[in-house]
Amino acid sequence: MSTPPAITKHSSGLEEVESGLCDPGATWYTGDTISGRRSSKVRVVGRPVPRNDALEKVTGRTRYVDDLGYEGMLHAATVRSPRPHIFIKRLDLRKAQKVKGFVRIVAAADVPGKNQVPLVMLDYPVFPESECRFFGEGVALAVATSPEAAREAAAAVVVEYEELPFVTDPLEAMRPDAPRVFGEDNCFRKFEVLRGDVDAAFAQAAVIVEGTFSTNYQVHAYLETQGVIAVPQADGGMRIEGSLQCPFYVHDAVAQVLGVPSNRIRVIQCPTGGGFGGKEDVPSIVASHAAVAARVTDRPVKLIYTREEDFLAMSKRHPGWAHVRYAATRDGRLIGADVKYVLDSGAYSTLSPIVLFRGTVHAAGPYRFDHARIRSFAIATNKVPCGAFRGFGQPQICFAQESLIDELAARIGMDPMVLREKNLLEPGSQTITGQTVDSSCGLSEVLERVKVESDWVRKRLAKRNQTGTRRRGIGVSVVYYGVSLGAMGRFLDRAGAHVQIEKDGSVIVACGQTEIGQGAWTVLAQIAAEALGCPYEAVKVLDTDTTRVPDSGPTVASRTTLMSGNAVLDACGPLRSRLNEAAAGMLGCGPDQIQSDGTRFSGNGKSVTYQDVVSECWRRKMAVSQQGWFASPPTSFDEKGQGDAYVAFTYSANVAEVEVDVETGEVRVLKVVAAHDIGRAINPQQVEAQIEGGVAQGVGYSLFENLLIRDGVMENGNFTGYIIPTAADSPEYRSIVIEKPYSGGPFGAKGLGEPPLIGIAPAVANAISDAVGVRVERLPATPELVLSLIRRRTADTNRSTGSESGPAAVR
Amino acid sequence: MSTPPAITKHSSGLEEVESGLCDPGATWYTGDTISGRRSSKVRVVGRPVPRNDALEKVTGRTRYVDDLGYEGMLHAATVRSPRPHIFIKRLDLRKAQKVKGFVRIVAAADVPGKNQVPLVMLDYPVFPESECRFFGEGVALAVATSPEAAREAAAAVVVEYEELPFVTDPLEAMRPDAPRVFGEDNCFRKFEVLRGDVDAAFAQAAVIVEGTFSTNYQVHAYLETQGVIAVPQADGGMRIEGSLQCPFYVHDAVAQVLGVPSNRIRVIQCPTGGGFGGKEDVPSIVASHAAVAARVTDRPVKLIYTREEDFLAMSKRHPGWAHVRYAATRDGRLIGADVKYVLDSGAYSTLSPIVLFRGTVHAAGPYRFDHARIRSFAIATNKVPCGAFRGFGQPQICFAQESLIDELAARIGMDPMVLREKNLLEPGSQTITGQTVDSSCGLSEVLERVKVESDWVRKRLAKRNQTGTRRRGIGVSVVYYGVSLGAMGRFLDRAGAHVQIEKDGSVIVACGQTEIGQGAWTVLAQIAAEALGCPYEAVKVLDTDTTRVPDSGPTVASRTTLMSGNAVLDACGPLRSRLNEAAAGMLGCGPDQIQSDGTRFSGNGKSVTYQDVVSECWRRKMAVSQQGWFASPPTSFDEKGQGDAYVAFTYSANVAEVEVDVETGEVRVLKVVAAHDIGRAINPQQVEAQIEGGVAQGVGYSLFENLLIRDGVMENGNFTGYIIPTAADSPEYRSIVIEKPYSGGPFGAKGLGEPPLIGIAPAVANAISDAVGVRVERLPATPELVLSLIRRRTADTNRSTGSESGPAAVR
Repeated sequence: MSTPPAITKHSSGLEEVESGLCDPGATWYTGDTISGRRSSKVRVVGRPVPRNDALEKVTGRTRYVDDLGYEGMLHAATVRSPRPHIFIKRLDLRKAQKVKGFVRIVAAADVPGKNQVPLVMLDYPVFPESECRFFGEGVALAVATSPEAAREAAAAVVVEYEELPFVTDPLEAMRPDAPRVFGEDNCFRKFEVLRGDVDAAFAQAAVIVEGTFSTNYQVHAYLETQGVIAVPQADGGMRIEGSLQCPFYVHDAVAQVLGVPSNRIRVIQCPTGGGFGGKEDVPSIVASHAAVAARVTDRPVKLIYTREEDFLAMSKRHPGWAHVRYAATRDGRLIGADVKYVLDSGAYSTLSPIVLFRGTVHAAGPYRFDHARIRSFAIATNKVPCGAFRGFGQPQICFAQESLIDELAARIGMDPMVLREKNLLEPGSQTITGQTVDSSCGLSEVLERVKVESDWVRKRLAKRNQTGTRRRGIGVSVVYYGVSLGAMGRFLDRAGAHVQIEKDGSVIVACGQTEIGQGAWTVLAQIAAEALGCPYEAVKVLDTDTTRVPDSGPTVASRTTLMSGNAVLDACGPLRSRLNEAAAGMLGCGPDQIQSDGTRFSGNGKSVTYQDVVSECWRRKMAVSQQGWFASPPTSFDEKGQGDAYVAFTYSANVAEVEVDVETGEVRVLKVVAAHDIGRAINPQQVEAQIEGGVAQGVGYSLFENLLIRDGVMENGNFTGYIIPTAADSPEYRSIVIEKPYSGGPFGAKGLGEPPLIGIAPAVANAISDAVGVRVERLPATPELVLSLIRRRTADTNRSTGSESGPAAVR
Repeated sequence: MSTPPAITKHSSGLEEVESGLCDPGATWYTGDTISGRRSSKVRVVGRPVPRNDALEKVTGRTRYVDDLGYEGMLHAATVRSPRPHIFIKRLDLRKAQKVKGFVRIVAAADVPGKNQVPLVMLDYPVFPESECRFFGEGVALAVATSPEAAREAAAAVVVEYEELPFVTDPLEAMRPDAPRVFGEDNCFRKFEVLRGDVDAAFAQAAVIVEGTFSTNYQVHAYLETQGVIAVPQADGGMRIEGSLQCPFYVHDAVAQVLGVPSNRIRVIQCPTGGGFGGKEDVPSIVASHAAVAARVTDRPVKLIYTREEDFLAMSKRHPGWAHVRYAATRDGRLIGADVKYVLDSGAYSTLSPIVLFRGTVHAAGPYRFDHARIRSFAIATNKVPCGAFRGFGQPQICFAQESLIDELAARIGMDPMVLREKNLLEPGSQTITGQTVDSSCGLSEVLERVKVESDWVRKRLAKRNQTGTRRRGIGVSVVYYGVSLGAMGRFLDRAGAHVQIEKDGSVIVACGQTEIGQGAWTVLAQIAAEALGCPYEAVKVLDTDTTRVPDSGPTVASRTTLMSGNAVLDACGPLRSRLNEAAAGMLGCGPDQIQSDGTRFSGNGKSVTYQDVVSECWRRKMAVSQQGWFASPPTSFDEKGQGDAYVAFTYSANVAEVEVDVETGEVRVLKVVAAHDIGRAINPQQVEAQIEGGVAQGVGYSLFENLLIRDGVMENGNFTGYIIPTAADSPEYRSIVIEKPYSGGPFGAKGLGEPPLIGIAPAVANAISDAVGVRVERLPATPELVLSLIRRRTADTNRSTGSESGPAAVR
């Protein structure tokens, strides 16, 4: 199979991108199933145009929510639960009332509508009626005339309570006698995937490996903490402005909490300093709090979290626990996978059901298994609720299953790269949910490319029999990632767009998803410019506002390029037809003959400027605005976990090289080579940035980020105690893009937001194993953990001269 | 001809409306030329549903622009020209700089783009470079931290100037030796309408009457003065929020003044306390001032005019001067009209060209004239620029031509009602521009109805030979009014709409026109509800925002129901189709069989609720938003003033009864009977309100409103000196609606905003003439004027015992 042009580059520059993929004459995509998508040669799509929000952000002109304020605005701060599980007897307000500027306390009794935050389930109260289920849970708001007074008043509120029994370990919480956090069994949701006959497969297997793996929390560590302003409206409705990832979730929540019709609520996303999933669910609570306060005071109310509050209350990546078993032939053909996967969901369900769904579907990795059984559980504990985080239930299980693949390779004495090559999904093969892989599958290519670019064979050999303090190792992982919401979110999987051409040819685009730093506005502007035949610079994407387009679902699941991109194309189609019609009239030819190079429209051997064509449209009073819409193709997932779970998959391979100090246990990631089949790179520079960011965040997840909750109390909820990687910790990286166009994506694109992170930890863990011969069974691989593993291995080796062994037992 | 059901009511209640026109089974309109217009029985359209903005307004919850404010916002106040025509030598800021809170002065040198307000012409600078052309013209802004400081600083700025010669009378300004205000001849614009052979017609006429008539200014006297807030944006653009009538004019102005692309400007109309045309042009200046100040300070800037500033600087109704001649047969058939019409435009052209156009087209009244010559002139003087005001150039000339019709009736001894009846336009006849009147012409009906309802014949006779101090009189006028912008504004005559159905069935509608108190939001919500088959209460119309729909032209010319109404219908069409498709799927029938009664969709003998149908649409991920668009049909106006000048006409007749105190000259309007053919009354209560308001404003124009500008200096620019009618001055009124559906209008509707005012003054003037035998040749008919006319008549009568004579000479 010939390899398509690819981005192959070092972090030093973009030269190779421009000379490689970005051939201005490339015609990757020629489909026409979506209105507005054109088969003409692309101009803007595929080019590393500069981000359209960069200048404002780097010059400090961008106004984030805390930069905004209204005359008469009040400020709120949250009174929080002092213990993991309490019955609230009373709030003693006497001290708070003495704080200068204190206005009032807002609590459950003030909620005019339902005291319930509508996410997947309805267990999370806006304010607790009487019971708090985690340390740091919001009990009430103190409202005052300044943020300082609000915080002082909140701190002065005395929560009088009775302590209740609590559970913090999900495996303990699954026991019948555990304290109850949710329902009868503390289980928010469970799934099962059953393919083939797993028990028979294992009974007949020549080789079986198994292992237990676990991961800790990961904190989003976005630059901007949670924050909103709620502005009461004359009709009893509310305008919310905030740092948001999913404005429509907030919209629905505030409407329900205030008990008003949906059309009286308007949610506007301010420029947002990062999300990574952390602003998917929690802003519904923050905004509901502020909205109730604004309603009862009839004043705008600002509620901005401090970093410490953000740590306490924000959803995190779920700690995960997995027991994985593989059955294989002696020559390394995977036959069966048997997985039990548990997510520690914390006190409320938030997004756990769909996080669990994604982890479940992807639990066996991108391999051909004829037999698989995945059983998964989202379990309630008395800790901060976990939610969405880049990867969304996949990184935990990917770490487990890719570690065990390496363990199997070791068991049968096969290069882990070769073992993977033998078992990869390819077009026509089926996933464990029985979904047939379509032609947009570059899995073998991404693996081949990382193998070559990382110099795998030579380096793997070179590391045998190292001595000395610092040992090098190299590890690999492969990942597949279902783009967009999939079967569990299929009713939400649609998106709207608004495109409007101004008289001067400048264009406004509005969509229902959000720019949270990932570069979505740049990519959508490129798609619009390509489709309209106008300059990229002419397009401005507006702040997302829930009254501009219908509910477009969340900005998650690497779905924005696909969903909003298609919606923008849908809107641009009729507009481009009108531009062509106007140009055809000016040039004396048929509209079908019109071409645009982005500045001039040509046909009949003549040309006119884009601006003149726009003027002609206006003169002819043509409609110059259009709403676009895209609904995802059908997905399914039956009671046996079979079905087309996702519309398309992004495929990734990562090779990590590490150096382990065997005396200190410190691990340094030296280099990551990452290859991704993303269908189409709309903007190679943004792709590069996603990969770079994913690598860094993945390195943090692998080695550093270690939130400590002891007896239900968070101990290091700040950037002093919770360590995230700095530039000095970032490895050299090399990113490779493979483009196997997806017929349902804009110009063939799939999604890339999450995949760059997912496979980093297992590649790093496998590299550690390669370096020092220990299996990392838990993340993060802190120096303490690595050192303890090395010491245990040394002790084991001293006891017997058998093969390497980590936590995984080998039959 | 049978008379259709009509609204016939007293101001005491709505009973007759509900039992009359508003038959819920009425099927007035069955056209289908516009997408989304349906032939099913109407439910909401035609009903006097309550205004959707009333509760918020009467409870004081509505937030007007001066109720809004931002943290860090600055305030501006305007430094104004102290004389009618000056050369600015210098601004002495020394005193201003000492004002506490003073920030800076903003003037011409601070304008980053063009120093030019783009309206019809480009003569109006944002800030004058060196020359001020009228008393009160804005020279500069003083910006400060509070409104009080800004005003104090503005007052402290000393404008050092050299006085220049000035002219204040338009007839003088037309002389070659007059001081120059504009161009070579002080003429902003002139028009000519030439039909038939006027000179020959007059040469052959049995009867010729002529007269000279003039009118004074009228001030809009809206409740809320001009005001905006400009909020600078990170991308160099600007958000403007304000009390606006035409946000797209402001949008274009601010983009040009700041020199930024159109897509960086966003203009939002706040709830607006009245416009009447006075917020059509001037907000472009106010907003440009604030925008320049916000740009140079990089802070939000609020600029709110005091009532006195509003009087000084705001456009007013043009003083008009007309010499009118009619040629007729002895039996009262009109043959020729010869009109010279001059508008006193003030120092800058603003909207004078199109105000003049409207006056020109309508200058001969709604009569069949085979021969007509209209010559019209908009003349520059050193006074406040005049602009748009309800009626827009028609009231001045209507007063002249309808007064002269009465004069002709007197001359030939014919009842003025009968004279009119003989000469009215009817379907198939031509206007003076050669436009053929279509079937939507209820002119004879409106006249017949006011004749009957006013008890004309009996009352006209009863008033002969009155004695005593108080004499009663009765007068009539007929009016036709070209709806929307017509040929002079044909490129602007389009409108957009956005309609979006929320998950709970609530609906948002956005359009490009504005609610300025006229009830547009109510009417558009009715149209949307009718078209979608949903409850009226489900629809909310958003504040107008120039980024939601494309430039939809101004909210003027009684065009909102027609233009935005059609655009809303265009948007609702596909949405209703999808609702029907969803309902059909639920009910097991074809979409064509689906009916809605506004709460339930039925078909196949079953029904489901509207909300269930909406849920089904969402479940099926159907597109639930749509942009609508409407472009007006072609209009024309050639160099001889011939063409289809307007798309449709509203037809009106008014009878006024007055009582004149012959000793004081005081006139009291006792009763007005007004009938209007508006095609279709979408909301009879709003129609009623428009008529009531038009009567009151017309009475003010007739009798009270008398702005005095002496030697270029305004003398009574406040509500102490400028008298507007109070409730005590309002006559009893009776309103009658005739519905001759217009095939191009939503549900057959034309427009009504302006017609109720236009014919009041001539009816009142004719009634005064009927009462006391004097011809009112100038407005307002103040006691002083009436008394002087009575005294002159007495003197004339003493001199000769001839016929009644006013200023009009009779051959």
